[in-house]
Amino acid sequence: RFDRMGAGGPLFIDVTWHPAGDPGSDKETSSMIIANTAVNYCGLETILHMTCCNQTKDDITGHLQKAKRLGLKNIMALRGDPAGEEWEEEVDGFNYAVDLVKHIRNEFDDYFDICVAGYPKGHPEAESYEADLRHLKEKVFAGADFIITQLFFQPQTFLKFMKDCQAIGITCPIIPGIFPIQGYHSLRQLVKLSKLEVPQEIKDVIEPIKDNDAAIRNYGVELAVSMCRELLDSGMVHGLHFYTLNREVATTEVLKRLGIWKEDPRRPLPWAVSAHPKRRVEDVRPIFWASRPKSYIYRTQEWDDFPNGRWGNSSSPAFGELKDYYLFYLKSKSPREELLKMWGEELTGEESVFEVFTCYITGEPNRNGYKVTCMPWNDDPLATETNLLKDQLEKVNRRGILTINSQPNINGKPSTDPIVGWGPSGGYVFQKAYLEFFTSSEIVTALLKVLKKYELRVNYHIVNVKGQNITNAPDLQPNAVTWGIFPGREIIQPTVVDPVSFLSWKDEAFALWIEQWAKLYEEESPSRMIIQYIHDNYYLVNLVDNDFPLENCLWQVVEDTFELLN
Amino acid sequence: RFDRMGAGGPLFIDVTWHPAGDPGSDKETSSMIIANTAVNYCGLETILHMTCCNQTKDDITGHLQKAKRLGLKNIMALRGDPAGEEWEEEVDGFNYAVDLVKHIRNEFDDYFDICVAGYPKGHPEAESYEADLRHLKEKVFAGADFIITQLFFQPQTFLKFMKDCQAIGITCPIIPGIFPIQGYHSLRQLVKLSKLEVPQEIKDVIEPIKDNDAAIRNYGVELAVSMCRELLDSGMVHGLHFYTLNREVATTEVLKRLGIWKEDPRRPLPWAVSAHPKRRVEDVRPIFWASRPKSYIYRTQEWDDFPNGRWGNSSSPAFGELKDYYLFYLKSKSPREELLKMWGEELTGEESVFEVFTCYITGEPNRNGYKVTCMPWNDDPLATETNLLKDQLEKVNRRGILTINSQPNINGKPSTDPIVGWGPSGGYVFQKAYLEFFTSSEIVTALLKVLKKYELRVNYHIVNVKGQNITNAPDLQPNAVTWGIFPGREIIQPTVVDPVSFLSWKDEAFALWIEQWAKLYEEESPSRMIIQYIHDNYYLVNLVDNDFPLENCLWQVVEDTFELLN
Repeated sequence: RFDRMGAGGPLFIDVTWHPAGDPGSDKETSSMIIANTAVNYCGLETILHMTCCNQTKDDITGHLQKAKRLGLKNIMALRGDPAGEEWEEEVDGFNYAVDLVKHIRNEFDDYFDICVAGYPKGHPEAESYEADLRHLKEKVFAGADFIITQLFFQPQTFLKFMKDCQAIGITCPIIPGIFPIQGYHSLRQLVKLSKLEVPQEIKDVIEPIKDNDAAIRNYGVELAVSMCRELLDSGMVHGLHFYTLNREVATTEVLKRLGIWKEDPRRPLPWAVSAHPKRRVEDVRPIFWASRPKSYIYRTQEWDDFPNGRWGNSSSPAFGELKDYYLFYLKSKSPREELLKMWGEELTGEESVFEVFTCYITGEPNRNGYKVTCMPWNDDPLATETNLLKDQLEKVNRRGILTINSQPNINGKPSTDPIVGWGPSGGYVFQKAYLEFFTSSEIVTALLKVLKKYELRVNYHIVNVKGQNITNAPDLQPNAVTWGIFPGREIIQPTVVDPVSFLSWKDEAFALWIEQWAKLYEEESPSRMIIQYIHDNYYLVNLVDNDFPLENCLWQVVEDTFELLN
Repeated sequence: RFDRMGAGGPLFIDVTWHPAGDPGSDKETSSMIIANTAVNYCGLETILHMTCCNQTKDDITGHLQKAKRLGLKNIMALRGDPAGEEWEEEVDGFNYAVDLVKHIRNEFDDYFDICVAGYPKGHPEAESYEADLRHLKEKVFAGADFIITQLFFQPQTFLKFMKDCQAIGITCPIIPGIFPIQGYHSLRQLVKLSKLEVPQEIKDVIEPIKDNDAAIRNYGVELAVSMCRELLDSGMVHGLHFYTLNREVATTEVLKRLGIWKEDPRRPLPWAVSAHPKRRVEDVRPIFWASRPKSYIYRTQEWDDFPNGRWGNSSSPAFGELKDYYLFYLKSKSPREELLKMWGEELTGEESVFEVFTCYITGEPNRNGYKVTCMPWNDDPLATETNLLKDQLEKVNRRGILTINSQPNINGKPSTDPIVGWGPSGGYVFQKAYLEFFTSSEIVTALLKVLKKYELRVNYHIVNVKGQNITNAPDLQPNAVTWGIFPGREIIQPTVVDPVSFLSWKDEAFALWIEQWAKLYEEESPSRMIIQYIHDNYYLVNLVDNDFPLENCLWQVVEDTFELLN
C-alpha cells in the first residue's frame, strides 16, 4: 500500500499513534515499526504522530530516541485522548500538546521537525474559538514548524481560520486536512470521534443515498475536488493533507482530477531509495540483495557512512557476522503451511527442488496445483524486468542451475523506459548481464572449463558454504553492472558486483536454505536431508558479461556447460 | 622527450644531480624541477640522484624536504666528485654515500626509497675490489633498498659481481647498468670520466669505424642486445637500467629487439596521470584545463585530497585566488618575437584575432607566412582527437566563435581505439560533445535565444570577465563528459564540466589574454587595445550536448546562432 500510495509522489505520509496498541514497541504492526518501514524500506518521508497525556517523561523520551535511531525526522505532537471519560490535569505531567512540543525541543534541539494540529472550528474542548487559537499560537511559539488542520467540510472554514491565525501572528505553514467522504458509516464515525458537525447541505445529499456506497464515494470525490480547487485557487494554500483512513482509491482519484498525481513517477535509482537522513547520499549497493532489499537495509543499519558514487574495495564497510537473531528476524512472513504447499510437502530428490525453482520462474502451478509466489531469496514474485529472461531462466532451472538473481544487458535505453528506466529524464541507462545461481559441484567443474574460453569477457565468483572461493575478478575490485548517464550530472552506478560483500551475502544465501526451507520439515526427514545436502554441497555462482553492447553470452556459457556434461 | 621515452613503459627514470648546476633550485633546468616535471606532469616514477660531499647537513636536508614536498619518493644516494683534484675527508661532513643513506633514514624514516651505486669492477678509488664490496654492503645495511651498477662491457663482469655481492650477504635487488655505445666520442668521454677500461675486442671493432657514426650505433645496439639477452637468460637479472645520455633512439631500439618495449602503451586515463604519491587516487578533473595540464597541477598542488570517483559539487576543493606570480610562472615559454610572428606584429581589429585562431586550427600559415603552433590557452599544437572536428572548428572561428577547447561525442568506442581509447583493454569509452569558446556579447545574445530550443539537451555556462554568469546547470552539479566502462571495474569518469571550478578557470582564461597576448604590444598601442577590448567585453562560453548517442548538435546550435544574427 505504501508503494502504491507513494507512486503519486507525496511530500510526506503520516503514521498515527494509538496508545492502546503499544505504538512504540518492536511489533511489526506498531506505529513505530510501520513508520520505520515507510522511511527505510519504502523511502517515504514520514511524520510519526505521538501523544503525550498519561505518559511519563521517560517513556516519551524513549520513544523519541527510538524514532531518531530509526531515522524518523518528523513528529506530529498531540495531546491524545484522556484515559477516562473526563479530562484531568496531571501536575508536572504532559497535559497539552504544547508540553510535548517543549519537551521535544528541550531534549532534541532542532533534530525533529514538529507538526501540530489546528482546529478550524476550534477544539471541541476549548473554552472558545479564540481561546483555541491562542493555544495554537502557544504550540507554534514553543517550537512547532507547521500546522495540519483537523478535517472540515467547507473551504471558507479553512480560509477564515487561516486569516484568524495570521491575524494573531501565526506565520508558519498551515496545511488543510482534506477528508474525501468514502462511505456513510465511516463519515458518521469520524464525525462522532471528532465532534464535528456535518453541514446541512451535505447531509441533504448523503442521507438519500446512504445505502449506495458507489454514489457516496463519487459524491465524496466530487466534493473534495471542488473544495481543493477553491483552496488552491485562493493562493493561500500550498499543500494538501488527506485523511485517507488507509484507503487509497478516493485520494488517488481526487489527486488525479486535480492534476497533481505524478503520472509517471521516476525512480531516482533502480532500487527504492531510503528516506533515512543518514542514508540519503547512498547511491551504490551490491546487486546480491536486489530481491531482499529489507535484509540489506537491516544488515547495514549500523553503518555510519554509505557509499556515494563509488563502492570502492577498500571502503566497503563490514557487514558483520550473520547472527541467528538476524535470520530469525528475516524469516519468511508466510505461514508454514503455505510455504509447504509452494515448496513441497515432501521432496523426493534434488529434482523436486529444481521443479520448485522452475515453477517460481514460469508462474505455473506446481505438481500439487499451487503457484510458487516467493522463494527464500526473493521477497516478491518475479520482477517485470527479470521476465525479459523468463524463457531462458526456465530452461536452465529445469536442469539444476537454480537461479536466484539475474538481469539482462542493456545498452543505453532512455531513462524513461517503463520497464528498465530510472533516474532523471533525458538520460540513458545501461546494464551488464548478470546471472546468479546455486548449482552442484559437478556442474561447477564443467562450468569452470567453459569459462576459460570466456576469460576476458565474463567475470565470475564461485563459492561454497565453507567459503572456498574461485574468481577471476581483478584485485577484488567491484564491477559496476548498472549505471546511468544523465544531462548535467555525474555518472551514477547504483549496482555493483562487489567481491568482498559477496562473501557476506553467501553466508545469508546459504543460511536461507536451512532457515526458511529445511526447517519446514522434521529433523532427519528425507526432505530435510535433501535441502541440507544442497546447502552443504552446492556452490553459489555469479556471472557478469562485461561486453554489454553485444548479445548476452551467459546463456551460451550455460549451454556450453550442459553440452560438456553430456 | 619524457613522453616519448615514457611510452615504452619504464619502471622508473633517473634524473642526475650536478652540484655545479644549482641542482636543488627552482630553475626550470635544475635537477629538482626536471624530476618534478617527470613525476607530476609526465607521470613517470623518478629517482632523483643526490650527492653529498662538500655540502652541509642543512643543505641536504633542505633538498630532501623539497623533494618530498614535490612528491618525489626515490633518491639515488651518491658521494659525488671531489671539489678539487684530490679527495679530502671532512670531519663530521658527508664523505661517503653511506653517510647520505644514514642521514636520509635518520631524518625521513622510510619515506624515501634509496638506491645506491654498485661498481662491478670496483670503485676506481677503492683500495681493492673486495674493499669496495664491503663499502657497498655498508650502504645496503645503512638502509639502501636496491643497487644500480656502473656500466660494464661484458655480462660476465656483472654476473660475477652479483655472485660476489650475494656471497657477502647483499640480498637486495641489483640492477645492471647498460650502456649502448652510441658514438666514438661519447664512449671515450664516458670511459675517461668513469675510469673504466674498454675491452680489447670492443676497441678492435670500434677503432676502424670510428668516423662512421651509423656503424658504431648499430654495433652498440647489437652489443647491448646480446649482453642484455645473456643477463636475462641467466635468471639472475630482473630488470635493466639504461644509461641513455638523454638520447632515446638506441635504448628504444634495444628494448624493441628484446621484446620488452610496450608496443601499445595504454593510457590509464585520458589525461596524463601524475606519479605524485598524494595524487595517485586522482581520477576526475575538470575539462577546462585539458590543454593546460601543467597549470592545473600547479594550481592544485596544495590540495590534500584529490577527487576519486566523483567530483561532487560540495567537495570540489577551492582553487584559491589567481595570483600574479602564478600567471607569471605560467607565462608562455616561447620568446616574444616568436609569439608576435604567430599572433601578429600588429592587429587591425577583432578580425585579425579571428584569423589567428583559425590558423591555429587549420595548421595553415598566417598572412605573414608563419604557422600558429600554440595559443595562450593551449600549450601544444592541436591534439589528434580534436582534429576530428577541424573543419567545423575552422568555420566557426572565422566568424568569431574563438574556440579554446572541444571534444567530439563518442558512443562506446573500444578502449583500445588508437585515437580516443584509454583505460584497460576490453572496455568501452564514451564522451559527450563539448565546445568552449570566447565570443562577443552580440553573439551571446543570439546564442541564448537559440539555446532555448535546446534547453533539455544542451547544458551551458556563459560568463564574462566580471563574473556575470548565465547557466542552466541543475543545482550547480558537475556534468560527466568523458567516462569509461571496463571489465570487472567501477565506472571511471575522468573528465567533468564543473560549474564551480569553471569560475576559477574563467579568471585564468581571461587573464591569459592580457598576460600572454596584450602585453606583447606597447601600452596604448592599437593592438594592445584590441586584445584589452576582447578581454573586457567578450564572454567565455561552454556547451555540452548531453545526448551522446545522437549526432552532435552543437554545430547546429552555432549555425542557428549565425542564422539568427543574419
